Amino acid sequence: MVVYVTRRETFNAAHRMYREEWSAEKNEDVFGKCANPNWHGHNYTLLVTVKGEVSDATGYLIDLKQLKVIIQDHIIEKLDHKNLNLDVDFMTGKMATTERLCMAIFTQLKTPIERNIGVFLHSVRLHETENNSAECFGE
Amino acid sequence: MVVYVTRRETFNAAHRMYREEWSAEKNEDVFGKCANPNWHGHNYTLLVTVKGEVSDATGYLIDLKQLKVIIQDHIIEKLDHKNLNLDVDFMTGKMATTERLCMAIFTQLKTPIERNIGVFLHSVRLHETENNSAECFGE
Amino acid sequence: MVVYVTRRETFNAAHRMYREEWSAEKNEDVFGKCANPNWHGHNYTLLVTVKGEVSDATGYLIDLKQLKVIIQDHIIEKLDHKNLNLDVDFMTGKMATTERLCMAIFTQLKTPIERNIGVFLHSVRLHETENNSAECFGE
Amino acid sequence: MVVYVTRRETFNAAHRMYREEWSAEKNEDVFGKCANPNWHGHNYTLLVTVKGEVSDATGYLIDLKQLKVIIQDHIIEKLDHKNLNLDVDFMTGKMATTERLCMAIFTQLKTPIERNIGVFLHSVRLHETENNSAECFGE
Amino acid sequence: MVVYVTRRETFNAAHRMYREEWSAEKNEDVFGKCANPNWHGHNYTLLVTVKGEVSDATGYLIDLKQLKVIIQDHIIEKLDHKNLNLDVDFMTGKMATTERLCMAIFTQLKTPIERNIGVFLHSVRLHETENNSAECFGE
Amino acid sequence: MVVYVTRRETFNAAHRMYREEWSAEKNEDVFGKCANPNWHGHNYTLLVTVKGEVSDATGYLIDLKQLKVIIQDHIIEKLDHKNLNLDVDFMTGKMATTERLCMAIFTQLKTPIERNIGVFLHSVRLHETENNSAECFGE
Repeated sequence: MVVYVTRRETFNAAHRMYREEWSAEKNEDVFGKCANPNWHGHNYTLLVTVKGEVSDATGYLIDLKQLKVIIQDHIIEKLDHKNLNLDVDFMTGKMATTERLCMAIFTQLKTPIERNIGVFLHSVRLHETENNSAECFGE
Repeated sequence: MVVYVTRRETFNAAHRMYREEWSAEKNEDVFGKCANPNWHGHNYTLLVTVKGEVSDATGYLIDLKQLKVIIQDHIIEKLDHKNLNLDVDFMTGKMATTERLCMAIFTQLKTPIERNIGVFLHSVRLHETENNSAECFGE
Repeated sequence: MVVYVTRRETFNAAHRMYREEWSAEKNEDVFGKCANPNWHGHNYTLLVTVKGEVSDATGYLIDLKQLKVIIQDHIIEKLDHKNLNLDVDFMTGKMATTERLCMAIFTQLKTPIERNIGVFLHSVRLHETENNSAECFGE
Repeated sequence: MVVYVTRRETFNAAHRMYREEWSAEKNEDVFGKCANPNWHGHNYTLLVTVKGEVSDATGYLIDLKQLKVIIQDHIIEKLDHKNLNLDVDFMTGKMATTERLCMAIFTQLKTPIERNIGVFLHSVRLHETENNSAECFGE
Repeated sequence: MVVYVTRRETFNAAHRMYREEWSAEKNEDVFGKCANPNWHGHNYTLLVTVKGEVSDATGYLIDLKQLKVIIQDHIIEKLDHKNLNLDVDFMTGKMATTERLCMAIFTQLKTPIERNIGVFLHSVRLHETENNSAECFGE
Repeated sequence: MVVYVTRRETFNAAHRMYREEWSAEKNEDVFGKCANPNWHGHNYTLLVTVKGEVSDATGYLIDLKQLKVIIQDHIIEKLDHKNLNLDVDFMTGKMATTERLCMAIFTQLKTPIERNIGVFLHSVRLHETENNSAECFGE
């Protein structure tokens, strides 16, 4: 029987929505108050779901400490208390939206999780506020 | 890569479970205290999930303000502080259960979301209490 | 050392805000959509806090099962799946606001808790929605 | 239209992770503080999702009271305020991990739900803490 | 009987901790990753509690719409999607900590609430994350 | 202006309610399923509130990292993944109730917080489940 395990982590970051090639007016028109040149920010909640079969020896799909370390090293370390537009290597040249960030986190995690823990990365869900979230499945 | 975006909204409403062609006894037998002729009510939490590809220009699947306006106009405006049995055009002739309401909200949202925003309505989830919820996918 | 113990319970009810001696227009003017003649409703969350000294024998301030039974018999039984304006003896002649209901619950609970369990009723907090709540301390 | 209905329940239990045939050192090496011989415990949150078509007569997929009774009799009664390693017949010989427990709950619920209520058991999700959960779908 | 009414609101903002007269090293030493020159941010949750006696006519301590408008005009409008260090008139020259912000919000709200609604501002609580919050009572 | 700052932490533990000098029957009679000889357990949520005046230099009442370390060293380290009846020095000879544990945590934290950080320990609140909590103020 296949089982899915989800780990929740949190981080805080600043960002803004804007395209440099657009005027301030167009940016504000399209992105509203999210275009504020002085930035704003969020407490993000991240849900990482992996999938596979349980070990007979341990009864675990994975050792959650291992998964926690991978998320810490590849994601939290790079995003927590950071500026998503300026400070994050894997977001360079991308809009700092929940959708783009969610997909980028999926891509960052896929190889380390699948190579190091030997389970399948099923989905990444990212909550930007209590009302807004994005999810992707890597297909 | 396909991405899913979820918007959470809330509304408050009264309702009761009963069939007019049944006696008071049978209604109470089948629906218990949910059949109270003087109504009861809930704080409903609604989760609307849309699905599609992200815009290169904005990094958004959708402008959440647009989605919010559609949910506001087609759902919240019609349900908030209303009686689900008496006040809601799209619930006429239907039992006011979480299941029926969830499916009716899906049907109400499908055309305006898919025609106006150009994304696919993936699912509607409706929480009636912290312990009970329904979800449908429109298939 | 004095200790405070809080028990959380929930109930669902319908209500509306209106004064019979006012016109429909005035009721709607003052109470907005809360005046809907067909009612609306909420999932209420109730927090009852008692205060006193811990028993040497049990390490408890109170047996929470006893407190639960008192809240059940005097409050939940009378409010759950009910209409606050029509069905509740201790709300007769009172506006069905969170404030009035909170104070009425305090009054209902004071004697049974203080006489039967021998602890002091410290406060009653009542959440009507995730954004609105009332609290009273009985002084 | 198919609809999914989810019921949330909670229970509290003690457990530990260890293999009797391993030394204390190896158990601690593999399971860390979860191997504490004196046990630790959790507030578990259980989400049971069933799936099917809504009854024309009632507007319900199921009578949630029936589902609640089945979960109560087959799961909560056996797990609440219990030791998952010592007290639970259907966990005998299994590691008391969230994954194993989640799969065992699925297996326990499948027959009574599908035979007695006539709906399909879609999934069981089990939260061990606010950060860790497992889910299975019975395939 | 005195009653307390609490209104919850949310806003998102960027900030950083630093003193201009300190070196980058000293700022990082004292404030850690909160000193990031490129900012970070939070979803703030604000709880405003007012206190007084209930109106006989309405059963309300206050019309929550009025309280909501005051919080909106004096706080949310000025803080939401803003930079707490750069964009907020009433935070000029102050450290952008949860404590300072909480006290400044109290001061901003005191006159408009007490003059316009005629109730006493009891407390302001501000959550910066799910783990950290500040509260003040204006004394 | 005095300000209150609250830090939330969590830990998981096993416990049971019983008095050795009582028979198994009497223990079960008084404590119900909480007397299970094989233990049960909880995810505890701890809220520690300190009180004082804000530093002009930092805008902080305290450096939350310092408070976190004190809570970690004096409380979490000793309680997390432990048995409250068997493993915890400061609970020896005490009933492992939420009330007793809450008061014991207050006593454990008072000196290190007040001596090392120079603020006043205002209160400790401890949630055993989502429905039950205790709080004490040290007076």
